[in-house]
Amino acid sequence: MRIIVENDYEALSQTVHRIILGQMYQDRRINMSLTGGETPTRTYELLTEIMSKHPKHFTNTHFYNFDEMASPDDSIHLTQDTLDRILYQPGNISKSNIHPLTAGNYLEIKKELFQNGGLDLMFIGLGSDNHFCANAPNYTNFKEEIYSVPVKTDPFLEEHFNQYLDEKDIPTEMVTMGAAMLMKTKTLLMAVTGKNKAKAVKQMLNMEISTSVPATVLTLHPNFILILDKDASSEISFQ
Amino acid sequence: MRIIVENDYEALSQTVHRIILGQMYQDRRINMSLTGGETPTRTYELLTEIMSKHPKHFTNTHFYNFDEMASPDDSIHLTQDTLDRILYQPGNISKSNIHPLTAGNYLEIKKELFQNGGLDLMFIGLGSDNHFCANAPNYTNFKEEIYSVPVKTDPFLEEHFNQYLDEKDIPTEMVTMGAAMLMKTKTLLMAVTGKNKAKAVKQMLNMEISTSVPATVLTLHPNFILILDKDASSEISFQ
Amino acid sequence: MRIIVENDYEALSQTVHRIILGQMYQDRRINMSLTGGETPTRTYELLTEIMSKHPKHFTNTHFYNFDEMASPDDSIHLTQDTLDRILYQPGNISKSNIHPLTAGNYLEIKKELFQNGGLDLMFIGLGSDNHFCANAPNYTNFKEEIYSVPVKTDPFLEEHFNQYLDEKDIPTEMVTMGAAMLMKTKTLLMAVTGKNKAKAVKQMLNMEISTSVPATVLTLHPNFILILDKDASSEISFQ
Amino acid sequence: MRIIVENDYEALSQTVHRIILGQMYQDRRINMSLTGGETPTRTYELLTEIMSKHPKHFTNTHFYNFDEMASPDDSIHLTQDTLDRILYQPGNISKSNIHPLTAGNYLEIKKELFQNGGLDLMFIGLGSDNHFCANAPNYTNFKEEIYSVPVKTDPFLEEHFNQYLDEKDIPTEMVTMGAAMLMKTKTLLMAVTGKNKAKAVKQMLNMEISTSVPATVLTLHPNFILILDKDASSEISFQ
Repeated sequence: MRIIVENDYEALSQTVHRIILGQMYQDRRINMSLTGGETPTRTYELLTEIMSKHPKHFTNTHFYNFDEMASPDDSIHLTQDTLDRILYQPGNISKSNIHPLTAGNYLEIKKELFQNGGLDLMFIGLGSDNHFCANAPNYTNFKEEIYSVPVKTDPFLEEHFNQYLDEKDIPTEMVTMGAAMLMKTKTLLMAVTGKNKAKAVKQMLNMEISTSVPATVLTLHPNFILILDKDASSEISFQ
Repeated sequence: MRIIVENDYEALSQTVHRIILGQMYQDRRINMSLTGGETPTRTYELLTEIMSKHPKHFTNTHFYNFDEMASPDDSIHLTQDTLDRILYQPGNISKSNIHPLTAGNYLEIKKELFQNGGLDLMFIGLGSDNHFCANAPNYTNFKEEIYSVPVKTDPFLEEHFNQYLDEKDIPTEMVTMGAAMLMKTKTLLMAVTGKNKAKAVKQMLNMEISTSVPATVLTLHPNFILILDKDASSEISFQ
Repeated sequence: MRIIVENDYEALSQTVHRIILGQMYQDRRINMSLTGGETPTRTYELLTEIMSKHPKHFTNTHFYNFDEMASPDDSIHLTQDTLDRILYQPGNISKSNIHPLTAGNYLEIKKELFQNGGLDLMFIGLGSDNHFCANAPNYTNFKEEIYSVPVKTDPFLEEHFNQYLDEKDIPTEMVTMGAAMLMKTKTLLMAVTGKNKAKAVKQMLNMEISTSVPATVLTLHPNFILILDKDASSEISFQ
Repeated sequence: MRIIVENDYEALSQTVHRIILGQMYQDRRINMSLTGGETPTRTYELLTEIMSKHPKHFTNTHFYNFDEMASPDDSIHLTQDTLDRILYQPGNISKSNIHPLTAGNYLEIKKELFQNGGLDLMFIGLGSDNHFCANAPNYTNFKEEIYSVPVKTDPFLEEHFNQYLDEKDIPTEMVTMGAAMLMKTKTLLMAVTGKNKAKAVKQMLNMEISTSVPATVLTLHPNFILILDKDASSEISFQ
């Protein structure tokens, strides 16, 4: 893995947007899966400013969501709504290049990614509880590529959804890509910012691999680029 | 991962030799790391028959050993001796294409593999105790690419070495490639034969990933080809 | 490029079948395009013996034809008929893994190959007039990926079709993959046998690249493996 | 190939710098060959501003020059001097990551690139006479990877060198990477700006491949990204 420390949020966002955007001009289909969290706000401003102006430059790039609420009727789709708002709509991305993940289609999506060459790049964040995508401590199966996971048993996810949904609307399941799928993405890019994530970064790097500290497994990825601001890197030491 | 079940040892050996040999004709440097265990006896007969006749066809292929005794003066090198006997000498492979691993050079080898494009193919076996390379239960650090591991504390390795060495000659350390290096090889090929390995295969496929069952981690590899004979596959079920 | 000289037709067929078959076990979709000519008769015997016994081992592999008669109603399909007879039927290959090329679908096939990761391997022959696929001297456009070419103006193709068809049934057009598509295949494998091809091999290797000697362009491929028997290599010199 | 048209020189330089810089963070050795011409002035300002601040982020990236004067004693090295001035020194790039090309080492460099995985990215310009690197009209051998070419017989090159050197100092030979090497680079990036290049762009795209219009051959590259400003694209039509 590579660890890149940037001075601040702006520098980190600039670097991430270059890595992502730089891939989109290749002369082949590019499959990406980009996070809907808060860390990428500035990254997506930089990306969508360019993408919205030149839609023809990005027709080769397809977007796959890596997690979603698994409401039985697919009526609630927080990830898709968030990405629509912060990336897909401001980036002027064609509907035909967006591939939402749902409780109803996740096995299809798995097959589709197998048939079309798989993910070229995933861009993810890190939870302060060490979760990645919707792989939460003790509710993770590293061996799954895409799978359904329980929500209500995990305090972190419950709290997360309580911000957006009424108690009654929170589904009992989510669908998420798991470690086995992340291992297959050609580039795995993670950005982490802020003092409150410094301990999670240290745990990921220093602790033994286990499902109780899920992101530890990502250190095995053959091309893992971890981009930190100074605060997020403050608890790790470099020789 | 892919699971290929062959009817018998001969069919398995034929398939493995095709996968290995098929890569060696590419028009680029190919880096391989092939096991010195007993499973590949027939595979190496097939390989070396062809390699010895046409040394010019295989000048692009380089061989890296994935483990070795770490005797302080490099005087004992069981892996290298075994591979010399069953593969390198009968295959008529040039010394300049063989890269032994030693206690003295393992950090150099790690750098060298980083600089020359890394391993294209590893071919490994599976221990009945679920070890791979020299990564034994409870003496494994998944996060290391190449590292030094203790010998005497592990009953399986001790017994293994007792077959070949006097008690006084068994070193206290081995060097081995770890899971982080195996994850970077472009193709990971494992062959397992015999009833006495059937349980280890089942554990690798069905148990949660942990250092007490080391080979479980290999199921995360992005291109893992597991080739079994019928006996070795007898405890797993296919849907 | 790499040049591999084998002692005889049997050795050449063994090597070619290992390179092709060795790729089919990878844990990803593999797209291949294999020639329907006469050179591969023995290669396909070796391949289909194994494929027919283990259809499940080869479900990841998809077959694309690289040329075909372009009869307006797709009623004549010599390439497909030949491949059915010598490869697809004896190999017990599922219809869903076979992608015939026609006058009606060649632009679709081009898009499909762009979307699914493109060809991993092409296996082609060499004409004694230096044609490859249906790219004949002076009727070749190197820059095309898949395109329609005239038949009747080329004496070699006319003679070829006269063997199989009544004069009145020979269409005026063929569809074929062109040099621009061949350059994109990850491995380009060509086998040539016999004294009567020795001059064509020499021309391909020694002459300047031009559409009057079409196969000259293939020497630019980034991973071109040329396999010759002794007769076919008899007019080239090795330093 | 892909054609990207940017509104102006600044937008083109921003896109090129993102494609180049985005690759440099990968967790593997990256080999690049970047042009010393005038088109990249702004691109290199953007690159070197970032590279000079964070030398540790770019330790994986190695730079190979693609052409040079072949003065018998290696006393004249215009390409190296130019790249030192506009890229290597302002970018604070370590000497150990710079691999100059000379009349004395070009066969060594060819071997080295074969052994270390080859070029990941080349960034080149286009001559108004359709030359690329030092492959000038009628003095080009497409089949060479790196080779020596005459200078004095080519009016364009002579004029070019007259700007920098006294008549008596102009060597009779240059060394340059040829089409066969460019075909092997994983990404081929070309930037062209200005009305005076519009005709050369049109020729490259529309004319038949031949050594009298050298850049025509680049249209065969499996991953060719051509970035133009509006002026340079003014003579080509898009459907």
